[in-house]
Amino acid sequence: MATALRQSAKYGLLGRLAPFVVPTSVHGRNGISRTALPYLMSNQRHSSSGTKIKVDLDGSTGIAVMRLQSPPVNSLSLDFLTEFAINMEKLELDKSCRGLVITSALPKIFSAGLDILEMYGKSPEHCGEFWKAVQEMWLKLYGSNMVTIAAVNGSSPAGGCLMALACDYRIMAENPRYGIGLNETQLGIVAPFWFKDTMANTVGHRTTELALQLGLLYSAPDALRIGLVDQLVPEDQVVSTAMETMAKWFAIPDHARQITKSMMRKPTIDKMVSNRESDINNFVSFITRDSIQKSLRMYMESLRKRKA
Amino acid sequence: MATALRQSAKYGLLGRLAPFVVPTSVHGRNGISRTALPYLMSNQRHSSSGTKIKVDLDGSTGIAVMRLQSPPVNSLSLDFLTEFAINMEKLELDKSCRGLVITSALPKIFSAGLDILEMYGKSPEHCGEFWKAVQEMWLKLYGSNMVTIAAVNGSSPAGGCLMALACDYRIMAENPRYGIGLNETQLGIVAPFWFKDTMANTVGHRTTELALQLGLLYSAPDALRIGLVDQLVPEDQVVSTAMETMAKWFAIPDHARQITKSMMRKPTIDKMVSNRESDINNFVSFITRDSIQKSLRMYMESLRKRKA
Amino acid sequence: MATALRQSAKYGLLGRLAPFVVPTSVHGRNGISRTALPYLMSNQRHSSSGTKIKVDLDGSTGIAVMRLQSPPVNSLSLDFLTEFAINMEKLELDKSCRGLVITSALPKIFSAGLDILEMYGKSPEHCGEFWKAVQEMWLKLYGSNMVTIAAVNGSSPAGGCLMALACDYRIMAENPRYGIGLNETQLGIVAPFWFKDTMANTVGHRTTELALQLGLLYSAPDALRIGLVDQLVPEDQVVSTAMETMAKWFAIPDHARQITKSMMRKPTIDKMVSNRESDINNFVSFITRDSIQKSLRMYMESLRKRKA
Repeated sequence: MATALRQSAKYGLLGRLAPFVVPTSVHGRNGISRTALPYLMSNQRHSSSGTKIKVDLDGSTGIAVMRLQSPPVNSLSLDFLTEFAINMEKLELDKSCRGLVITSALPKIFSAGLDILEMYGKSPEHCGEFWKAVQEMWLKLYGSNMVTIAAVNGSSPAGGCLMALACDYRIMAENPRYGIGLNETQLGIVAPFWFKDTMANTVGHRTTELALQLGLLYSAPDALRIGLVDQLVPEDQVVSTAMETMAKWFAIPDHARQITKSMMRKPTIDKMVSNRESDINNFVSFITRDSIQKSLRMYMESLRKRKA
Repeated sequence: MATALRQSAKYGLLGRLAPFVVPTSVHGRNGISRTALPYLMSNQRHSSSGTKIKVDLDGSTGIAVMRLQSPPVNSLSLDFLTEFAINMEKLELDKSCRGLVITSALPKIFSAGLDILEMYGKSPEHCGEFWKAVQEMWLKLYGSNMVTIAAVNGSSPAGGCLMALACDYRIMAENPRYGIGLNETQLGIVAPFWFKDTMANTVGHRTTELALQLGLLYSAPDALRIGLVDQLVPEDQVVSTAMETMAKWFAIPDHARQITKSMMRKPTIDKMVSNRESDINNFVSFITRDSIQKSLRMYMESLRKRKA
Repeated sequence: MATALRQSAKYGLLGRLAPFVVPTSVHGRNGISRTALPYLMSNQRHSSSGTKIKVDLDGSTGIAVMRLQSPPVNSLSLDFLTEFAINMEKLELDKSCRGLVITSALPKIFSAGLDILEMYGKSPEHCGEFWKAVQEMWLKLYGSNMVTIAAVNGSSPAGGCLMALACDYRIMAENPRYGIGLNETQLGIVAPFWFKDTMANTVGHRTTELALQLGLLYSAPDALRIGLVDQLVPEDQVVSTAMETMAKWFAIPDHARQITKSMMRKPTIDKMVSNRESDINNFVSFITRDSIQKSLRMYMESLRKRKA
């Protein structure tokens, strides 16, 4: 049972993706069992820093490509987030790196968002540590000095959507079966104020109010229409288009672009930083409630049944 | 003369609705004189709480339908607002009620907005009491824990527009002769900051700046285009569509939706609450100016002549 | 060399207008050399207040037309800005004036923005005085009690765009070769927070973030699409349409419109006023950096070469 739950939880907040696509890789296209997949894939892809994230920096172009490769659905676990933060710190300090493309190495999913297992049946201390890591991910990405482009080559609910929103530009595969959005309320949980601020900065107050209250996942075409993503391209061109787009951003002197970016984003970042502790406390006291734990359990069980 | 003015004033802020529809019910489609209409209609419709507002709560669905039935144009008088507040308090406390649909029982008008008679020739004390009731209406609606849907089945200028804007979702009859907007400046009066904030939260800063300065009333199709309403349907389907739409909102766990709604709206509500007294004082000192009273008199006389 | 630079600098921030139109008047359509042009044109156009700005107030309509006539590209020099401020003060105090149309008397350019010569090779004191004048221009225009309409009959980059944005309404020539936008980063400099606030109040946070980071100039049709301008008309109808549009604004009682305008804009103005000194200090310390001065020199030299 615990194992089943753990496997289910790997879906992060993906559960209610229907009518959006559910990665078929879960069962393995070639019959390989799901639990074996991570090691296989990480062996195939391994080249640089960690097991969950692969980073390739091309010093000649100044572009780093970060590939998320934590099967089955790139859930944002504590380990994943720690690896992400270490990679971001390295790249931020590397003067040869001016731009970062974030994409998924897995089929049909960009990231399914926060790993539910980090919030289910865990101690308040663990939940707090986990939430701090989620905050850190956002802080590093939303405030990055690099040009950051999300190459969204699959569905991207909840925390996956946040990661995309924290970039400077979003290019998504034009597959209408891929969904993106902050759909937390569908699970009975709530996107915190800085998720909300990030989305409102992108699509405005009203669209955010509607999207967050209803936990809306937008299909790729709808996401483009409301401005949640900036551009749609065929799936096999998402990363290459991101690379080409970098040229336009690199044409601007870095110092002017960085000061401008900071001017646009600093108020939102400052507000989060000055409320960071209370945000952690809020999350911990909310997520450890019996009623919320029960919701999470029911959600994970529904995922397990779906796969049975 | 006083009676004539009183009757004219029942139009609230509707006066400059042209080119939008003016309710023909005023003269009575069937020849019934206007002064007789209220009693007739309230007799026909009376069923629940008050004489100006009829509320039907279906405990099995959790949806309450509030029908505004204060002829001729659902002006927001002190009595009307008091009845509204009492109804809202009851529904908010009723655990069997999760959603509220607000619509008009009168033809061609949702609500014509604030009742001018409450501001014309009245003592500062009365004006202050009236304004406090307008604030209360907005506070109760914008901050409601229920899902609130405005079924806008007629024109909705000024305070009528505010009432619609304070709901979670707006469905309007697709009749291009119906107008909606905060058109206060057309009468020489000014929408206060929290009317402005509510509109800016819905359609953005620039559209609000233009709409408020020019006192624009938008036809139903234009209102949809700028996001002032969310959906247009044939007139006879406005309420039924609102009922169906509730299902989508009820699919979200209440607690998550309510926390999210509060996160989106609390800053705007807090700002109003902390400026409530000064807002009342501003209104009273503005509306009791000789020049403004003269504007209101001229406006009401123009309404009277139009009907002569 | 100094003379060449001075002439180049007259282009203000126009340099990277390509693919947008560069005024051909620079070389003189009729073979008249550029250095001779200013005097010739100012002789032809001179009628009222100053040499760089011509103002015609029609007391019968209440509309003043301000024509910018500082060849070759209406750069915002210290002299220009001083003349602008004096004119604004006069008009603001003139009770016969209710509305102001701002347009260019020069072909193909509305205003090329800040005059680089006021920031290149100048003392910190001069740079500070210049920046204060730029602030003053914005304060007087964004906070004007008059109805202000920008009749944008040519390209309008950087400070020229700011001037248009500070008006109540923007009508632009529908020529796709004309560009408008806050393109400062293209030159390695940065639009300050109140430029940013003015643009965000007009087109929203996200569009502003993208536009400012990339230093985007929008073609007239694109500017309409994103809401940077309100209306496109044939080039020879820009001013006449602005005059006709005034009627709609004049139909609203001035006091109600002015209170509403102040309500919309005062927070943005207050923020700038309370940060005015630090904004000047920031500008001076930034613009007098060796690296920035070098950027400006290279930019002016590139302009000079382009013309050689």
